[in-house]
Amino acid sequence: MNVWLAHRVSYGETDAMGVMYYAEYLHLFERGRSEWIRTRGHSYAAIEAQGIYLPVREAQCRYRAPARYDELIWLETWLDAQSRASLTFAYRLMDETKTRLLAQGSTQHAVVDSRGKPVAIPQWLREFLSPSCQ
Amino acid sequence: MNVWLAHRVSYGETDAMGVMYYAEYLHLFERGRSEWIRTRGHSYAAIEAQGIYLPVREAQCRYRAPARYDELIWLETWLDAQSRASLTFAYRLMDETKTRLLAQGSTQHAVVDSRGKPVAIPQWLREFLSPSCQ
Amino acid sequence: MNVWLAHRVSYGETDAMGVMYYAEYLHLFERGRSEWIRTRGHSYAAIEAQGIYLPVREAQCRYRAPARYDELIWLETWLDAQSRASLTFAYRLMDETKTRLLAQGSTQHAVVDSRGKPVAIPQWLREFLSPSCQ
Amino acid sequence: MNVWLAHRVSYGETDAMGVMYYAEYLHLFERGRSEWIRTRGHSYAAIEAQGIYLPVREAQCRYRAPARYDELIWLETWLDAQSRASLTFAYRLMDETKTRLLAQGSTQHAVVDSRGKPVAIPQWLREFLSPSCQ
Repeated sequence: MNVWLAHRVSYGETDAMGVMYYAEYLHLFERGRSEWIRTRGHSYAAIEAQGIYLPVREAQCRYRAPARYDELIWLETWLDAQSRASLTFAYRLMDETKTRLLAQGSTQHAVVDSRGKPVAIPQWLREFLSPSCQ
Repeated sequence: MNVWLAHRVSYGETDAMGVMYYAEYLHLFERGRSEWIRTRGHSYAAIEAQGIYLPVREAQCRYRAPARYDELIWLETWLDAQSRASLTFAYRLMDETKTRLLAQGSTQHAVVDSRGKPVAIPQWLREFLSPSCQ
Repeated sequence: MNVWLAHRVSYGETDAMGVMYYAEYLHLFERGRSEWIRTRGHSYAAIEAQGIYLPVREAQCRYRAPARYDELIWLETWLDAQSRASLTFAYRLMDETKTRLLAQGSTQHAVVDSRGKPVAIPQWLREFLSPSCQ
Repeated sequence: MNVWLAHRVSYGETDAMGVMYYAEYLHLFERGRSEWIRTRGHSYAAIEAQGIYLPVREAQCRYRAPARYDELIWLETWLDAQSRASLTFAYRLMDETKTRLLAQGSTQHAVVDSRGKPVAIPQWLREFLSPSCQ
């Protein structure tokens, strides 16, 4: 299941080159995976309330074309992989017409308890993440 | 004319207290006034393309109640005052039900040319800002 | 007691106007008051560890002259006022030579416990804040 | 040549998990490469003044251990690779004692002119980057 999120580039997200600053893409990716979770009827806040946290272990982004102030852009997010104790989300950022690729990236997440200790993905989370629950 | 903008509090906007960090409200105010301008059929980008810039001269915010991660909040923006060479926008941030006030603030803007020199508000901008064009 | 903090303007702090974005000043003010507390031999982290929090109730900034990418700037911070259950810090941002005023502002803080309930400033904190402990 | 930069984690850089938010590492990496350039007697601002820009084409970070509010951390930056029209910086983030690895990452930069067109690295920039000029 791929989830699209619209985003308007704000002035505060731009830098002196007049384009969206490279760290802002990671903020946007976070919005994308929150939206992915929300679209499946959950919320990351509710997952944390169950004592499960998904800290980022690795993040990566390739910047293809700049996103300018006031542009409406589209972020596509999907769950790309899961192992026993980690999840990987992938992202594509497109222009307003969804025809031009602006950036692509991924984030790998550990699954940990409230003390930061890695835990196996609980069954309720695994079911929620599974394609059949789409 | 008051313009409402919905905003979902992201993880990146929160701080170690678990609530939206106080500087993020100014980012949100910027989104509010951009939306106010857009609702009137213009864009701040287009105003800049005419050689007119509206840098912030003063910003102020009163924080009434915290905004938490994943909350949907509403920002109300309006043009509060204008003088010969300045504009003041005012903002109210409300919770999801628009019944509880979370914050209120204002930003005063100079009107300057591309070299930062103050200029009188041009007629086309004054007309666009006037209530009669709502 | 006034405390000075040097700061180099990063690219990520600038916006499309090529100057430090207006919300970044509040980040800088926070660094200033942390440094003020640290200079007195404490840390805000240690204050929180005692169950006392100082959330911002009001923030205000006047922007006098822009701060550009890569500029070295100086922030002066002092405790401007204290009442039974609130503190006010004031700030002046100066250029590299400390001769030109770039911005000035203030933040008013409530004194609350871990549940956000206002409390009177504890004696140990009042002593730490008092001029005689400088 | 490796350059070390000290950094104090601010409240505004933390998130609701109480640790430095993952996008903030890219801000820090930018400070690291600016410092690397400054240590060699140049500044990125001066490079841009020559009409040469170094936009990020790819960024990557592995998060090993969290950085908490008020921690003093150390960033090590070095030029890891250069080709005809690109540069790669690498980064290691260490704790206060420089004994524990918190994160490691890299950024690959294109070399472009003011219109964003890729250009070969000019001779003056190549000399400045070369180890012999250390």
